[in-house]
Amino acid sequence: MSRRTLLVLAHPRSDSLTAQVAGRTRRLLEAAGGSVDLLDLYAEDFDPRLTPADEPDWTDREKQYSPEVRAHMRRIEDADDVIVVFPVWWFAPPAVLKGWIDRVWNYGFAYGRSRPRLAGKRLLWVALAGGSEASALTDALELQLTRGVSEFCGIGRTEFRFLFGTEFSGIPENLRGERAREVFAEAEAAVSAFTAGADALAPTPA
Amino acid sequence: MSRRTLLVLAHPRSDSLTAQVAGRTRRLLEAAGGSVDLLDLYAEDFDPRLTPADEPDWTDREKQYSPEVRAHMRRIEDADDVIVVFPVWWFAPPAVLKGWIDRVWNYGFAYGRSRPRLAGKRLLWVALAGGSEASALTDALELQLTRGVSEFCGIGRTEFRFLFGTEFSGIPENLRGERAREVFAEAEAAVSAFTAGADALAPTPA
Repeated sequence: MSRRTLLVLAHPRSDSLTAQVAGRTRRLLEAAGGSVDLLDLYAEDFDPRLTPADEPDWTDREKQYSPEVRAHMRRIEDADDVIVVFPVWWFAPPAVLKGWIDRVWNYGFAYGRSRPRLAGKRLLWVALAGGSEASALTDALELQLTRGVSEFCGIGRTEFRFLFGTEFSGIPENLRGERAREVFAEAEAAVSAFTAGADALAPTPA
Repeated sequence: MSRRTLLVLAHPRSDSLTAQVAGRTRRLLEAAGGSVDLLDLYAEDFDPRLTPADEPDWTDREKQYSPEVRAHMRRIEDADDVIVVFPVWWFAPPAVLKGWIDRVWNYGFAYGRSRPRLAGKRLLWVALAGGSEASALTDALELQLTRGVSEFCGIGRTEFRFLFGTEFSGIPENLRGERAREVFAEAEAAVSAFTAGADALAPTPA
């Protein structure tokens, strides 16, 4: 069965390393026979500011959210897998991605039901970090998105993958291409392991 | 000397508990003879999406950011103290607040100098959490904003205060007024301790 993936990209530049990782992920999934719905949050002009129209009503889990949010909910519903590719800014997702969670992963849809609607889906977070290694702060980010979002919503299988050392300004120009290829290879290995249903991703190289 | 405070508010509703805490904070500061610059991110229609105009250039810490961001930088510069009042959504700040950090707390201004420009300021984070107690996830949020933002920028004194149990839908209506007054009292105690220069805030009641 061909799997459908919602591929979420959160970067303002289409030539960014983040966008390149997302583009390669798309091609990898399509080459394997899957279908991809690319949600480029910047290109689609997604407004991350939650307004009262999309504020959860704790007394009404059937609340009708805004048409824009309902359309985004359908894109999640239509996917078997969700892969989110983003840069780490301030040890956290960019605002545009945080707002997609604030608005779309809402009460009654993503959580708040005895039978979670998203339980059957798989979710892979791919985080491009400028720094070179894990720390208490990167652990905090991983916890926030895996336990705080995926598991909170009852998603059965979540993977989180950091791609470290993705800020190249300190690297001589003639070495950047090679370093980019390493990042792409790491990303592709992570996506392949995720889609293959491996129980665990390979550890990040030191 | 009268202190100047930049008071940042991140909530879409002016009748929210968060907005009420900010309003009371403002009155408390003004009653003590201070001056307050209220930055209501929603009311000012702040766009949290960082674009290339405000992307850091790691080779140029003198980069001229967008006029909007430079105006926001001046508001931080003009303040002795910064107090940020926000609701905890998904164990993190709302997108509009995350974007204020993404865009305004930028390279060359907030960090990236041997003598940090914001070193002399004091910063108080006031986080209204719906849940009733601290957890690994609230610890992660506190770490993200104190070590990840304030300390990263060399701010000498940072306080972080959770106001727990601020989601009232499970509380009988006749008890909500009293609970709100408790939250206001906690917030005012935190602000008073902060402005008085106490070395530590009182612990949050269990």
